[in-house]
Amino acid sequence: MTMTMNKQIHLVSRPTGEAVAENFKLVEAVVPELQDGQVLVRVHYLSLDPYMRGRMNDAKSYAAPQPLNAVMQGGTVGEVVASKNAAYAVGDKVVGFGGWQQYSVVDAATPGMLRKVDTTHIPLSAYLGAVGMPGVTAWYGLTQICKPKAGQTVVVSAASGAVGSAVGQLAKARGCRAVGIAGGADKCRYVVDELGFDACVDYKAHPDPKSLYEALKAATPDGVDGAFENVGGPVFDATLARMNAFGRIALCGMISGYDGEPIPLRQPQLILTNRLTIEGFIVSEHMELWPQALQELGTMVATGKLKYRESVAQGIEAAPQAFLGLLKGKNFGKQVVKLV
Amino acid sequence: MTMTMNKQIHLVSRPTGEAVAENFKLVEAVVPELQDGQVLVRVHYLSLDPYMRGRMNDAKSYAAPQPLNAVMQGGTVGEVVASKNAAYAVGDKVVGFGGWQQYSVVDAATPGMLRKVDTTHIPLSAYLGAVGMPGVTAWYGLTQICKPKAGQTVVVSAASGAVGSAVGQLAKARGCRAVGIAGGADKCRYVVDELGFDACVDYKAHPDPKSLYEALKAATPDGVDGAFENVGGPVFDATLARMNAFGRIALCGMISGYDGEPIPLRQPQLILTNRLTIEGFIVSEHMELWPQALQELGTMVATGKLKYRESVAQGIEAAPQAFLGLLKGKNFGKQVVKLV
Repeated sequence: MTMTMNKQIHLVSRPTGEAVAENFKLVEAVVPELQDGQVLVRVHYLSLDPYMRGRMNDAKSYAAPQPLNAVMQGGTVGEVVASKNAAYAVGDKVVGFGGWQQYSVVDAATPGMLRKVDTTHIPLSAYLGAVGMPGVTAWYGLTQICKPKAGQTVVVSAASGAVGSAVGQLAKARGCRAVGIAGGADKCRYVVDELGFDACVDYKAHPDPKSLYEALKAATPDGVDGAFENVGGPVFDATLARMNAFGRIALCGMISGYDGEPIPLRQPQLILTNRLTIEGFIVSEHMELWPQALQELGTMVATGKLKYRESVAQGIEAAPQAFLGLLKGKNFGKQVVKLV
Repeated sequence: MTMTMNKQIHLVSRPTGEAVAENFKLVEAVVPELQDGQVLVRVHYLSLDPYMRGRMNDAKSYAAPQPLNAVMQGGTVGEVVASKNAAYAVGDKVVGFGGWQQYSVVDAATPGMLRKVDTTHIPLSAYLGAVGMPGVTAWYGLTQICKPKAGQTVVVSAASGAVGSAVGQLAKARGCRAVGIAGGADKCRYVVDELGFDACVDYKAHPDPKSLYEALKAATPDGVDGAFENVGGPVFDATLARMNAFGRIALCGMISGYDGEPIPLRQPQLILTNRLTIEGFIVSEHMELWPQALQELGTMVATGKLKYRESVAQGIEAAPQAFLGLLKGKNFGKQVVKLV
């Protein structure tokens, strides 16, 4: 048989502070022969997600660290190109956790490793975003933690991103006022004009906390009932200061602190005076709700009611720079890498 | 009829920073004649509680500010000395919200204003502490928010105080490991030797955050599953850093910040990485659970299973200094003022 070469991106060192290109290395390997039960997937898209930054550290966290000198782990979509598993046929479109490489060998019998998807009405790459982990993250935090009622106000940070854009549109679908926080006028325009949020605050236009607070106050005249926090730091401080009594905060990410800089919460006493609930969550720990979430998300995408944007990097070699850009907010919408 | 003179303590100015004696003033007034439906209560004990400091400020909070040039509001226990209400007879022992004064005229028909209590097995003053608002506060936060299971570890700050001492003993009654944080060796000894906590950390012996964390770590070898926070600041930081995954934190008070000094939460990202829930609460908003809580607390006090200590100041004139001392942790257990 012919050997299939497989370009991979490995993590070869851990960041000290900011992550840099030198933490990654392009490696070429040979695709091993399939064993019984296995499936060979040609990866079409890699998913790049902020949580990966946390896993680059060798720190106690909810997930084991990304191993050194191994393929960067991550979600992928692709096509089955060889199969020794009766449940999968060549040509099947699949979503899985193939990592940053062109081909992945999957023990397809292990539950949760691979899932066939229908691309009739939903683009394949959407299974990494609006109809994938980010979409379910948005759905879970909004419906299970924020639990907003019609007429209430929901604020979400990183509002133009894969998670944030879904949070606001799901909130709008529930009759809420949706207010985004995003970095830059372009992103804010997109959030309001394309995604249909009621307002969006450009945090880059408000570098001091007082100004940011005033801008968010103007955008949330009735206060905030549900908050979905992806950023942390001053953005979280401003949101906390706008919470109404009995408000609920889903804490999903704190990307502003991923390089290790301090991101204190300045006024935790507001949690008490306003009787708030704050809950941190990891969507992969709530798999029992994924089918319900994916059904709503898939229907909304297929019917055009859940819009999203992608930043598409081209080729496996582009993955590290695209990822570093994501950490700085250079992406616009869901960041993927297109390999095919 | 003879006029009954009534010594009262009024709030006459709001603190700028630390509360001081000059914020209060002793005033003498005449007890007005009773109207139909009213009851005259001679106050035996005033309750002094940390929440009162917050109400001295003219700030947006859960409760309206304490009005200026009016009697300091607060819980009281006493005895009915005159009644124009058929439901109350002279000699009845009652708990109410009479404020810092010797006599209070109560519209006893208004629900929640006055409650008769049985002092056969429970001392009257205990209705201001272990079998009163502080006890119910402990019960609510522990059972409704921390929800610890037998074998889990519960940490409570201000552990020798009216609320904290009940939290630990209620946790022990549920088979938990109870760990206190208190200020000073005497208080810590009391918490362990008298109240039966498993351990107590003296925060005054650990002025730097690292040392405090290490001491708490030694006292919580299996981490912390439920935390009951009364203090805020470095004590809260240390507790947060010891939380286990899916830990639950009841935020009841942040006395370290009551004078307006910043009390940032240094590592809010731990809420995310450990998937914690933090919930602020005010026990007066959960009146539907008071009967259930008071039944357990009353039974435990009457049977000697819930111990408590009181700091008793003598005479209405002593109330301001006793209150200022409470804010500095000079009390030891529940702070009351004995008027009769």
